[in-house]
Amino acid sequence: MAIPKPSIPKGTRDFSPVEMVRRNYIFDTIKTAFSKYGYLPLETPAMENLDTLLGKYGDEGDRLLFKILNSGDFMKGAEPTTNTNALSLKICEKGLRYDLTVPFARYVVQHQNDIIFPFKRYQIQPVWRADRPQKGRYREFYQCDADVIGSNSLLNEIELIRIMDEVFSQLGIRITIKINNRKILAGISEYIGEAGRITDITVAIDKLDKMGEEKVFTELREKGIPMEAISKIKPLLKISGKAEEQFEVLTKTLAGISTGLRGVEEMHKIFSGLKNISTLNPVEFDVSLARGLNYYTGAIFEVKATDVEIGSICGGGRYDNLTGIFGLPGISGVGISFGADRIYDVMNQLKLFPADVSAASQVMIANFGEKEALFCLSLQAKLLEAGIRAELYPDTVKLGKQIGYAVSRNIPFIALIGENEIKEEKITLKRLSDGNQQSFARQDLIEYLKNQ
Amino acid sequence: MAIPKPSIPKGTRDFSPVEMVRRNYIFDTIKTAFSKYGYLPLETPAMENLDTLLGKYGDEGDRLLFKILNSGDFMKGAEPTTNTNALSLKICEKGLRYDLTVPFARYVVQHQNDIIFPFKRYQIQPVWRADRPQKGRYREFYQCDADVIGSNSLLNEIELIRIMDEVFSQLGIRITIKINNRKILAGISEYIGEAGRITDITVAIDKLDKMGEEKVFTELREKGIPMEAISKIKPLLKISGKAEEQFEVLTKTLAGISTGLRGVEEMHKIFSGLKNISTLNPVEFDVSLARGLNYYTGAIFEVKATDVEIGSICGGGRYDNLTGIFGLPGISGVGISFGADRIYDVMNQLKLFPADVSAASQVMIANFGEKEALFCLSLQAKLLEAGIRAELYPDTVKLGKQIGYAVSRNIPFIALIGENEIKEEKITLKRLSDGNQQSFARQDLIEYLKNQ
Repeated sequence: MAIPKPSIPKGTRDFSPVEMVRRNYIFDTIKTAFSKYGYLPLETPAMENLDTLLGKYGDEGDRLLFKILNSGDFMKGAEPTTNTNALSLKICEKGLRYDLTVPFARYVVQHQNDIIFPFKRYQIQPVWRADRPQKGRYREFYQCDADVIGSNSLLNEIELIRIMDEVFSQLGIRITIKINNRKILAGISEYIGEAGRITDITVAIDKLDKMGEEKVFTELREKGIPMEAISKIKPLLKISGKAEEQFEVLTKTLAGISTGLRGVEEMHKIFSGLKNISTLNPVEFDVSLARGLNYYTGAIFEVKATDVEIGSICGGGRYDNLTGIFGLPGISGVGISFGADRIYDVMNQLKLFPADVSAASQVMIANFGEKEALFCLSLQAKLLEAGIRAELYPDTVKLGKQIGYAVSRNIPFIALIGENEIKEEKITLKRLSDGNQQSFARQDLIEYLKNQ
Repeated sequence: MAIPKPSIPKGTRDFSPVEMVRRNYIFDTIKTAFSKYGYLPLETPAMENLDTLLGKYGDEGDRLLFKILNSGDFMKGAEPTTNTNALSLKICEKGLRYDLTVPFARYVVQHQNDIIFPFKRYQIQPVWRADRPQKGRYREFYQCDADVIGSNSLLNEIELIRIMDEVFSQLGIRITIKINNRKILAGISEYIGEAGRITDITVAIDKLDKMGEEKVFTELREKGIPMEAISKIKPLLKISGKAEEQFEVLTKTLAGISTGLRGVEEMHKIFSGLKNISTLNPVEFDVSLARGLNYYTGAIFEVKATDVEIGSICGGGRYDNLTGIFGLPGISGVGISFGADRIYDVMNQLKLFPADVSAASQVMIANFGEKEALFCLSLQAKLLEAGIRAELYPDTVKLGKQIGYAVSRNIPFIALIGENEIKEEKITLKRLSDGNQQSFARQDLIEYLKNQ
């Protein structure tokens, strides 16, 4: 009977050893930066109660939650019905994590009595979304978040900018960090006489980069923003020059609009603070940066790669009331999130993964038979003790096959120990890149491999 | 309106920073050992197709799978019914991973053309089981598995024994590694004239340790094993002495029973091989070790902690046909799995976590005001450059509160830089353990902290 080849759910992925090693290189770089600045690791369960998740991501988000069927007799007490939505809430109590932000807010509220604020945490875990799978969009993907919660200080914004700058410098990706402030966008909405329309306005402005000015203005008109208001926005979206010069223009334009001025003041302080440290990548103020997320209330961050057209590879911002949804109001937080999948793609495309990002053994000891293998066990032990990653090929098969294995795993050397070598207490070392062979006494072999 | 405090699904856990750091210490120790011996990392998706999972863990396992409700109009085409089981298969196509072994087998079969065998992989990921939650049993928990697939060599068994020995030595947990062989158990079943009853026999024998001889024999009688057969088992379960002596007894007893003799021969080879290396913990042959898992066909491993009564903290064995269920027969594999939760409990109980297992900053720079903080930003940058984990307290609040934060996070030093310190270019360093204060020039401070 032919069994069909097994497969995995669409939108999910297996990560092969080669991919894993590269992904871990990215994760480790991010973790190291987070830790360095005092962020501590946190993990929350993959499953959350549905009432923790529902209503936090809009209708679209609710629809994209993966729900988990209750165990046991889940239909007990439920009316047999084909009304999908009503039924799903009766037969499912739990859902898979949709992002790391809501579980983090839930954690903070649940453990508020044990937490000393400010609470700086990082979290690197997968999230799940029932999105339509397409190139570069997956149903399971990792988020890498760092947040400080319980501190209003703009020093946190400065720190997060440094972390973004450092991570991408470490990875070798050239970037621009763009910053704006939600309060400035609110101020602009007020200035054009459409204070209540900030969401529509920011959603449209957010597309400036991708779609160009004309389409943004068309969208604004379609949303019912009057022509007069739109013409007042136009010059603001075009301001350019140094950040400080832009702040001057905005301060004049937004005169008397307190929220807007506070936004400009915050940006000014962040840029002043940045002068006390040095970033390796440019940090730019961009008044058209909006990001769709409605919960931002202060700074907004976005990172673009310089050398690849791929959208933002990191982003974040300040939110003043994230824990309010769980009954703990008045706690301000700010955070960033690295897009590991896009970062992986950028690094792959630009060939930025260092050649030594590999978990391969440094040497493989070939297997010439049972007796030889037993002798080789103690050689392997000596090599490992000396800190050399050495593996012994387990089966006594043709040397060609054993070499094929070593080549496929990028193992650079093979140690050959046959009957003669055992007798003469010599080891032949074959370099796979050029086939060169050399004979060593055991201690000399260790010294040689240590220096490779 | 009072909002009820949020919670998480029963049987799941949040891992606080303190717990995370300790868990990572365990995971990193295990990963390091796996890598050292040439095992490569692999990850598979949390969700698998239900037909990959169903029927692989017995009826009980099928019942304990978490099923994921199909997205969209899941009831379309399904009859409204209250027949739970039939309905669940119509409205759910996917389930959460129940262990790492079946997804690994699925991976190997799916990617068989890209894999050069033997394939040595490790995998550290959570699994989910809808078990009734109780002390020490969770619905989400991590498994840490290493397997070699596509090699019959007993060198793999020897290597896995070394890995178990090394990991627990590193962690400081004293253990005994127990080994048996499924073929010996099959041979014994044949010897007592009950060849077809190996499952019942091994399930009962497996309980010898916990329940004692009498209860095991009662269970065997209840399962319908004749008294005569049971009395033939009795002396075999009592054999003791050195492994080699036990092998002699078994060789005589199982004379003519080829499967059994092959099992003894395999054990003999493994114990001979172990003489070529040195293990730090005792490795014992235990003919009563059975482990419930039916797919084992050769060696069986189990690790017990010496100083804590907690059941097995690591186990594994050889299986000859794991990928057969997915249509790829004839591939032998052997693997082990570390029980991270139990290992954590053992280490906690025996206070084995090293004091320096902490992600805390080495120094916190206190915040005395906006101007001082800007100055401190560059000090922090210098400390970080020198490899010292330094964080700047973000808010200008009372020093007592800032110290409370440092204490709660086990940060050993606070750097105090007020107006005077800036003027005099001196930094006051306060050691929190005893309140001792000392004044430093910047470079001296860096040197001092480097040596702490």
